[in-house]
Amino acid sequence: MAVDDTTVRKRGEVGVSHIAALAGVSASTVSKVIHGRTGVSTGTRRRIEALIREHGYRKAEKAEAVPIVEVVFQALDSPWALEIVRGIEHAVRPHGLAVTLTEMDGAHTPESTWARQMLARRPVGVIAVSAMFTEHQLAQLDSRGIPLVALDPTGEPSHPIASVGAANWNGGLVATRHLIQLGHRRIGMLRGPDELLCCRARLDGYRAALDEGGLPHDPDLVRSAPLYFDGGRDAAAELLRLPDRPTAIFASNDLQALGAYHAASALGLAIPRDVSIVGFDDLPIAQWSDPPLTTVHQPLAQMGATAAGFVLALADGRTIEHDRLELPTKLVVRGSTAAPPASTR
Amino acid sequence: MAVDDTTVRKRGEVGVSHIAALAGVSASTVSKVIHGRTGVSTGTRRRIEALIREHGYRKAEKAEAVPIVEVVFQALDSPWALEIVRGIEHAVRPHGLAVTLTEMDGAHTPESTWARQMLARRPVGVIAVSAMFTEHQLAQLDSRGIPLVALDPTGEPSHPIASVGAANWNGGLVATRHLIQLGHRRIGMLRGPDELLCCRARLDGYRAALDEGGLPHDPDLVRSAPLYFDGGRDAAAELLRLPDRPTAIFASNDLQALGAYHAASALGLAIPRDVSIVGFDDLPIAQWSDPPLTTVHQPLAQMGATAAGFVLALADGRTIEHDRLELPTKLVVRGSTAAPPASTR
Repeated sequence: MAVDDTTVRKRGEVGVSHIAALAGVSASTVSKVIHGRTGVSTGTRRRIEALIREHGYRKAEKAEAVPIVEVVFQALDSPWALEIVRGIEHAVRPHGLAVTLTEMDGAHTPESTWARQMLARRPVGVIAVSAMFTEHQLAQLDSRGIPLVALDPTGEPSHPIASVGAANWNGGLVATRHLIQLGHRRIGMLRGPDELLCCRARLDGYRAALDEGGLPHDPDLVRSAPLYFDGGRDAAAELLRLPDRPTAIFASNDLQALGAYHAASALGLAIPRDVSIVGFDDLPIAQWSDPPLTTVHQPLAQMGATAAGFVLALADGRTIEHDRLELPTKLVVRGSTAAPPASTR
Repeated sequence: MAVDDTTVRKRGEVGVSHIAALAGVSASTVSKVIHGRTGVSTGTRRRIEALIREHGYRKAEKAEAVPIVEVVFQALDSPWALEIVRGIEHAVRPHGLAVTLTEMDGAHTPESTWARQMLARRPVGVIAVSAMFTEHQLAQLDSRGIPLVALDPTGEPSHPIASVGAANWNGGLVATRHLIQLGHRRIGMLRGPDELLCCRARLDGYRAALDEGGLPHDPDLVRSAPLYFDGGRDAAAELLRLPDRPTAIFASNDLQALGAYHAASALGLAIPRDVSIVGFDDLPIAQWSDPPLTTVHQPLAQMGATAAGFVLALADGRTIEHDRLELPTKLVVRGSTAAPPASTR
C-alpha cells in the first residue's frame, strides 16, 4: 500500500488503552484483536480494527513480528509456484527471514480461518500470489501494520496495494509477431481464464500483433483453457482438428503448450514441421521438451524477489518509489517454431 | 525421536532459575538461549543447552511455539520438492499450522546462522529434506523441545531421529524386473550421488533384479549422474554411444530419465522402439513427456504428510509407534518401455 503521510503521522500517537477507551472495551480485548487471538465477537473486532485504522497505535504496543514472510498461493500445483517461492526465499534469507507458505486449494479469496491463523503467526509481511483478499481481510492486515504485496497474475493495477507483475501484453505481442515473421497466417491461441488479468493481457498482445500484421481475427482460432497440461491438450486438439487448422498455436503458459505437443503428436503432426507452438513462462521443463519449447520468458524468481523487497521496505516503514512494477518478458526461440508447411503458404 | 519416559518425567521439574543456578548464569541468559536470541557466548550457550537436556525445564517457561512447521530443503530446484511441500502443507493446515521453507543452496548441513534464525522463529517442529544436521544443531533443537523428523533421501535408518522414506530398493527391483520381463538383456543404469542412501538402494534393487534374471553385471552399463536433466542426458549419451549399447536404461529419477530422452533423440534413437527408459518419482511431468514415461511412483505428497504427522505427534508429546516408515513405491507402466529391437534379442 502506498504510504500515506497523514497515516504515518497518526500512528504512534495512540496507545492500546486509548483504543480500548474509544471502543468501550478492556485493553486486553484490544490486545486480543491486535494479536489475532479468539474470544472477541465479530462486531467488537471490527469496531476495534476500524479505530486502529483511524488512530493507529503506539509501536511499542504493536505485536512483535515473527521473522517470516507469509506467501499465499491460490494453488501450489505448478512448477511455476516453485520458481516464485525460490525467488522470495533467496531475497528474504539474508534478512534472517524465512518463507511461510499457505495454499488455498484453488480458491481466489482466503478463508476467514486462514486470516485468523495468519494473524496469529504475526508475519513481517504477506505476499499474495493469484490471491485476492476481501476488504475485511485487507483491513485486518492494515490495522496490524502488516504490509501486503500482490504478485501476478491477479495484480489489479488500480488496487490500493503494491504489486509486481510481468510485461504480459508485450510477451503476447512478441510471441505472435515471431510467428507472423516466420510466415504463419493462421495462428491459434489458447487463452487462459478470463478472471486472470495477466491472461487477458497476453490475449490482447496476440490480437495487437495480428492487427499489426494485417491478419484477420478468427474467433474460431481462440480457445479458452485452464492453465494446465490437460486444458492445453484438449483445446489444442480442437484447434488442430479444424478443417482449416492453424499452422501455429500460442499458448498462455508452458503447461498448456506441452499439452498442445501431445495433441499434435496424437494427430500425427510433427512440431515444428506441421505446427509451431509457443508457450509462456519459460519454466525449466520448457528446455526439456522435445523439441525444446519456444516460449516467453517471465522472470518468476525475480518477480518473487521484487515482491519480497516491497514487503521488506514497507515493513521497515520505508516508502517504495513505485507501487506497481512490471518486469520485462522476453521471447526465447528454441525448436518448436519454424516456417509453416509449404502447402499453407 | 522416540519419547523417553525418563526424559518426559524429568521435564517439568526444573525451572529456568534452577538451570541458571546450575550454569552459574542469570535467568535472562538461560531465557536468551531458550528463545534463540544472541548475546550469549558459545561456551555458555552449550553449557546451558546441556543442562536443559539433562534436567528439562518447566513447560510454563518454554518459549511458546509459533504455529509453523519448518521445512529445510537441501535444494528447492525440482518439482520433486513441490510435491513434498504440498503434502506437508495439506497435512498441517487443518491443525492451524503453516509451512515455513528454507533452502540450503545444495549444502547438506544447515549453517549456524540458519539454526539461530530457525530457533528464533520457534516452530512447532522441523522436517529436514535431504538435510543432515550437526550434533550441535540436533542438541539445540532437543534442548528446546522442538521435534525433528527427516525425510528421504538422506534418511539414515540408524539415526536417532524419526524419518520417513519410500521403498527405494523395491522400486529399483520392480523397474529392472519389468525391463527383463520385456526381454531386455543389456540394461543400463543412471545411478544418483553415492551419498544419498535412497539412490544406493535403487542401484541395489537393480542389481538384485539382474541376479534374479541370471544377467551379468557389466560395470560399463552403470554411470553416475546428478539427479537433474543435464546429468541424465550426458550419462545416457555415454551409454547410448557404446559399441554394444544397452537396449534399456533405468534412471534414478524422472529428471535424469527426461535427459535420457534427449540423448536418445539426439542420436536418432526412438523411445521405446530403439531404447526403453524407466524413471523414478512419477512427477507430473512424467505423464507429459512424449512418450509418457514408465516410472516408479514415489508417494512424495504422502511422505510429506507422514513426516508432518510425526512432527505433530512429537510436538504433542505423543509417542510414535515406528520411528522409521517407508511408504510403498509402485511401477507405473506408460509408453517409454517395450520389447528390445529384434536384432538384439
